[in-house]
Amino acid sequence: MKSLICILLIACSNHCHSEAPPLMRKTLIYETTIKNLKPVSDWKKPAHGVWIASLGDMSKELRYTDLTAEAPRIDSINALGKQDFPFKESDIKYIINPDGRIMIRIPCAPDERLYGYGLQFDKTNQTSRVLSLDVDHWGKGGGRTHAPAPFYISSRGYGVFFNTARFLKVYNQISNRKDATQRPPEVDRNPPKDEVKTQPGPWQAKPMGDSVEAAIRASGMEVIFFAGDSMLEVVQRYNLYSGGGALPPLWGLGFWNRVHAHYSAEQVEQEVAEFTKNRFLLDVIGLEPGWMTKSYPCTFEWQKKRFPDPKKLTQTLLGQGVRLNLWENPYISQKAKIYKDMYPLSGSHMVWLGIVPDYTIPAARKIITDQHYQDHISIGISGYKVDEVDGYDFWLWPDHATFPSGTSAEAMRQTYGLLMQKMLYQDLFKKYNTRTYSLVRASNGAASGYPFVIYSDSYNHEEYITGLSTASLCGILWTPEIRSAKNAREWLNRMQTTCFSPMANLNAWSSGKKPWAFPEVTDDIRAVIELRMRLLPYLYSAFAEYHYKGIPPIRAMILEDGFDSANKVVIKGKLDSETNPYAEGKIIEKNDQFMFGPSIMVAPFYSKHATKRSVQLPAGNWYDFYTGELVGNNTKITVTAEGLKNRTPLFVKEGAVVPMFAKAPANSKAAKGQDLIVRHYGKKAGSFSLYEDDAKTFDYQKGVFRVRQISISAEGKLSIKTKGKSPALFGKILSVEKPRN
Amino acid sequence: MKSLICILLIACSNHCHSEAPPLMRKTLIYETTIKNLKPVSDWKKPAHGVWIASLGDMSKELRYTDLTAEAPRIDSINALGKQDFPFKESDIKYIINPDGRIMIRIPCAPDERLYGYGLQFDKTNQTSRVLSLDVDHWGKGGGRTHAPAPFYISSRGYGVFFNTARFLKVYNQISNRKDATQRPPEVDRNPPKDEVKTQPGPWQAKPMGDSVEAAIRASGMEVIFFAGDSMLEVVQRYNLYSGGGALPPLWGLGFWNRVHAHYSAEQVEQEVAEFTKNRFLLDVIGLEPGWMTKSYPCTFEWQKKRFPDPKKLTQTLLGQGVRLNLWENPYISQKAKIYKDMYPLSGSHMVWLGIVPDYTIPAARKIITDQHYQDHISIGISGYKVDEVDGYDFWLWPDHATFPSGTSAEAMRQTYGLLMQKMLYQDLFKKYNTRTYSLVRASNGAASGYPFVIYSDSYNHEEYITGLSTASLCGILWTPEIRSAKNAREWLNRMQTTCFSPMANLNAWSSGKKPWAFPEVTDDIRAVIELRMRLLPYLYSAFAEYHYKGIPPIRAMILEDGFDSANKVVIKGKLDSETNPYAEGKIIEKNDQFMFGPSIMVAPFYSKHATKRSVQLPAGNWYDFYTGELVGNNTKITVTAEGLKNRTPLFVKEGAVVPMFAKAPANSKAAKGQDLIVRHYGKKAGSFSLYEDDAKTFDYQKGVFRVRQISISAEGKLSIKTKGKSPALFGKILSVEKPRN
Repeated sequence: MKSLICILLIACSNHCHSEAPPLMRKTLIYETTIKNLKPVSDWKKPAHGVWIASLGDMSKELRYTDLTAEAPRIDSINALGKQDFPFKESDIKYIINPDGRIMIRIPCAPDERLYGYGLQFDKTNQTSRVLSLDVDHWGKGGGRTHAPAPFYISSRGYGVFFNTARFLKVYNQISNRKDATQRPPEVDRNPPKDEVKTQPGPWQAKPMGDSVEAAIRASGMEVIFFAGDSMLEVVQRYNLYSGGGALPPLWGLGFWNRVHAHYSAEQVEQEVAEFTKNRFLLDVIGLEPGWMTKSYPCTFEWQKKRFPDPKKLTQTLLGQGVRLNLWENPYISQKAKIYKDMYPLSGSHMVWLGIVPDYTIPAARKIITDQHYQDHISIGISGYKVDEVDGYDFWLWPDHATFPSGTSAEAMRQTYGLLMQKMLYQDLFKKYNTRTYSLVRASNGAASGYPFVIYSDSYNHEEYITGLSTASLCGILWTPEIRSAKNAREWLNRMQTTCFSPMANLNAWSSGKKPWAFPEVTDDIRAVIELRMRLLPYLYSAFAEYHYKGIPPIRAMILEDGFDSANKVVIKGKLDSETNPYAEGKIIEKNDQFMFGPSIMVAPFYSKHATKRSVQLPAGNWYDFYTGELVGNNTKITVTAEGLKNRTPLFVKEGAVVPMFAKAPANSKAAKGQDLIVRHYGKKAGSFSLYEDDAKTFDYQKGVFRVRQISISAEGKLSIKTKGKSPALFGKILSVEKPRN
Repeated sequence: MKSLICILLIACSNHCHSEAPPLMRKTLIYETTIKNLKPVSDWKKPAHGVWIASLGDMSKELRYTDLTAEAPRIDSINALGKQDFPFKESDIKYIINPDGRIMIRIPCAPDERLYGYGLQFDKTNQTSRVLSLDVDHWGKGGGRTHAPAPFYISSRGYGVFFNTARFLKVYNQISNRKDATQRPPEVDRNPPKDEVKTQPGPWQAKPMGDSVEAAIRASGMEVIFFAGDSMLEVVQRYNLYSGGGALPPLWGLGFWNRVHAHYSAEQVEQEVAEFTKNRFLLDVIGLEPGWMTKSYPCTFEWQKKRFPDPKKLTQTLLGQGVRLNLWENPYISQKAKIYKDMYPLSGSHMVWLGIVPDYTIPAARKIITDQHYQDHISIGISGYKVDEVDGYDFWLWPDHATFPSGTSAEAMRQTYGLLMQKMLYQDLFKKYNTRTYSLVRASNGAASGYPFVIYSDSYNHEEYITGLSTASLCGILWTPEIRSAKNAREWLNRMQTTCFSPMANLNAWSSGKKPWAFPEVTDDIRAVIELRMRLLPYLYSAFAEYHYKGIPPIRAMILEDGFDSANKVVIKGKLDSETNPYAEGKIIEKNDQFMFGPSIMVAPFYSKHATKRSVQLPAGNWYDFYTGELVGNNTKITVTAEGLKNRTPLFVKEGAVVPMFAKAPANSKAAKGQDLIVRHYGKKAGSFSLYEDDAKTFDYQKGVFRVRQISISAEGKLSIKTKGKSPALFGKILSVEKPRN
């Protein structure tokens, strides 16, 4: 029978269909074994440890790498060293199905674990899962998220990036071909008693597959492989190939606060005064939709009844070191001055009755960035919160919408957040040589270079913490923002989490809650915000590592040496005809703690673990951040809010050097030039690269920056070497400070 | 600018792409207004009130109507009368996008309500929703379900059936084109106080769209329109075009009970004896996977350690009027005798390590049906429970799998449940002239002719009741099976619901619970099962109406005259930054009651409404089933379990005639020839068509059936006219019985 199939296959060429309707076909026309797949050949190698393959015709497809903030940092990648291809190149196979699906098959060992696929809220480990990587709002599950970057990292030290802006469906070690060689043995689910022992193992609800199979419907598919000596190095290569990580202005790392949608200029000034009065630090005020004449859909023009003199307001606030950030979504009102010009450059369908500009078209980008420059940037606006570029389905354009450039609605959906970032970053902020730190509600692959932070309408504290880990695997910055709380403890816990995230963001415009909303924790909240501000030199340098070396400033624990073993796969669960009819097992993962900068581990209190929680310490000595005491090495400990005097559980690596401001500055403006101390943990020598530039322009891209290499010997002796030509951002290093309670 | 676009469009033909990569395009190449859509022309009209249009090339696509149980009942459709096309034919437009999406646009008025889209668990009204109509397991939401029949019914008296076996994405009155003429006015979401009153209305999270837009990726799309004087008549035409409704054997409407997967023949016989001992009626015993030598994947061969003589067991049970039903899923073990022959006829991927036969191929169908006849049907097996033909994604083949017939994995996914039904119905049961009533976990469009009932691993009682309504709109039979209960009340309530469904199905194989599991409700449960058995003549005739006229035996209330007004659309909800950030409204729908046969309305107790609930009585007089008392007319009432003496709330229409057995028979075997009484409700004359045939073979298709037309005058006088040539199935009609408490 099999040889007959082959003959038929040859006879009717590659993807033929018989003439008869599908149900009537009496002959086999399609080979269904692995033989039918073709090996992927013709790999390009743009840098050490990076390989690219193109399948089909990519000329009509949009690549995520077409939309990066900056060009690939090839030199930095090569500096990481040479790498071999992670396995036999010809073991990677593909097929283009008759219905236009392009599928690539990448082999996987049974003990291999796969991580990543963008900002996900449940876990980092994606083994044994099918994911639909479509941009969407929160809560859909199954892969759909604000930033479903189609990139995974294998525990074997390589990563795969599906570089085509299409809806991707990916089967991670879950799907077995009938002639797969590595597949698990067949097991009877209901053996008679006397046969139970003779079976090769327990029956599995999800037999482990021997590959990743990923498919899109497109004319072409591009895939990029990244290798590395560690999973972190794989992530570094991915980020460096995406142009390196974002380098925010220093003010972006301060404290943010968004005000009610209907606030006036006067109320904004009062809000700033309230912060000062309550002795709370503040860097950025965010204005919500009411600043515009019309919103949902938008005009992008100032509502003069609320903001009679936006320039005066902006400049007044800047004088106090406070910046303004403007909410917008991209959908344009008929009342907007730019509506008429944009109309022919917009897609077929509206969103909230506003037209949807096609920002792949330069003319469309010029219309909006000219308006934004004139009305916002030229008067000192610092950035945007780009809302609702993600979904749901019923709020964005349909998948069959058309756009004037001919770009498919699907590619638009996958990249609209990226297109907005690219336009605002390149055509607005970079053009006028002023850095931004902004917010956006959707992103995707190869986006690490954008100084935009993702946020969500979801509000589960545990998921928010997991998001910090998953985002770090794929070049995404994520803020676990605060909107409200049921009680003081939750308010404090959420505030502590946000203060150790890429953006310390209070977005309580709707609930109206201020940092001092719960008096019993006000001092604790002030303390954690002040700690973040004291750590600005440390955090800013961590972002420089992101930019220049691709190391994420906030990182999943799985990227940390000695932590990996905390993951455990349970293949058999408990049968329950109501909730688990297939007795499915699960992957148990410790993902409620994360790294903050090079050497601090954060394990926030949250949800059910509001005042007591377990912490997994990786291999190596770990110290209490506050006291400097040795806590443990490769062990699980329990911490309590009481034991920590209501402070965030923070742990520091052996030998770590942590530069901090001697005193907390009121905001980033006040921070410049302030003197530092350094803390040193444990008994080993250590060092820290303190990065400095002007912290506000793009002059660093012309080499205007410097690094102070701070070293502390095992005996505690400090030495400093400075390289580079920038003026100092921070002041003197006063002393080595012993951590003290 | 617009004229330039048109010129460019002409110059580069219809769906061209520029040569430049998408991001670099500087010219507009695609018209994004409605002008770019083409009117659908060339409608075929196979029967009165039925119109068919084909877009693109349908020769490579599978139609749902290729898979119907029986040929369209054209004469029966024509008997419903002539109909005009529901609106201007040329208002229906379509487009084939460059990426291969075929989209059809069907206009909708703002006050039009849309119902249907298969077995859905939340509501019948699908207005303002985006649905992905992919076959899948329960719980995914957004349209994905066991039986996502792509058919909707409009409150304006027409229905649209998307007759192509592909994943369909449909935007129901939710998506507005930028040049739509009917769209709602733009409203500012955040107006200054003095502008609130001048707005045209409240801001809407989901502005009402002016159309249904539906798209697939395929070479062709077929769409069928059905018109009708009422929504019920639209459903009738859809069912009749699908070959009419299923006509189960009488035994299928009795009581079902499934036993533990590891039961032996001896235990099965004990189970039947237990039912007799406890005075519980029984028609069918279902065997779960352990009856096979291997399951998950399957062999379909008897496990002789548990069932040493299956023929003897089957015949012994048949002698007691009890039939056996066999669980199976389609995925074949290496240990199966048919494995080797089926291997080349199977798809590329396995499910639970079993091969997946391609049942579009006649040779594959022959292999399995020969085996099934030999091992099961020839010894008296009555039917199957075809499990796991639905999903999840991670248990079925991937969307890029290939099948030897060349049928796409997507078409296979949409139709695998249908293919199994077609094969078992036509190549097995019909071939051997014996009717079946079976179970299947997936179905789809045009399936009304199959005597297969859908079930689910989900277990929400409220959703189960909603499923009875939604299934009825699209030719699907659904069983709210019982598996377990937290207490006696839930056990009783679920038992009552299942007894007024297409299949009274106890599937407690896992929990081990029997009907008498909660002694305090045993008598009440016995009573409702006995009531179902007494109503068999009424229910069997209701199925005959389904078969010959397309009227669903269990029906959504929206198909009932005078009920429609219970639906209400609330466009503005309450703003909540955690749960409802867009202040979305919702559609409030009364869907927890349904019609059972021509004249009985069932309003079961469930979930939070375990002992007290509201009932919406449609216009017209409605009577208490048990007492015959007038309950109300077009009003909402409250009923309590106490007031009803723990019986199911049942209400009967003015003038209704309800034939019942004088006494509850032990099962369908004992039922044959038993004498009837008829009940008459209210003061108006009424009638009932009592249908009779042999209730077990397909001879009715050769005209071997009869109808006793039972009429009762306003004064209560009974008259009977008999038409047709079948011998009597039921006995004499003894008397007109006044309902009594």
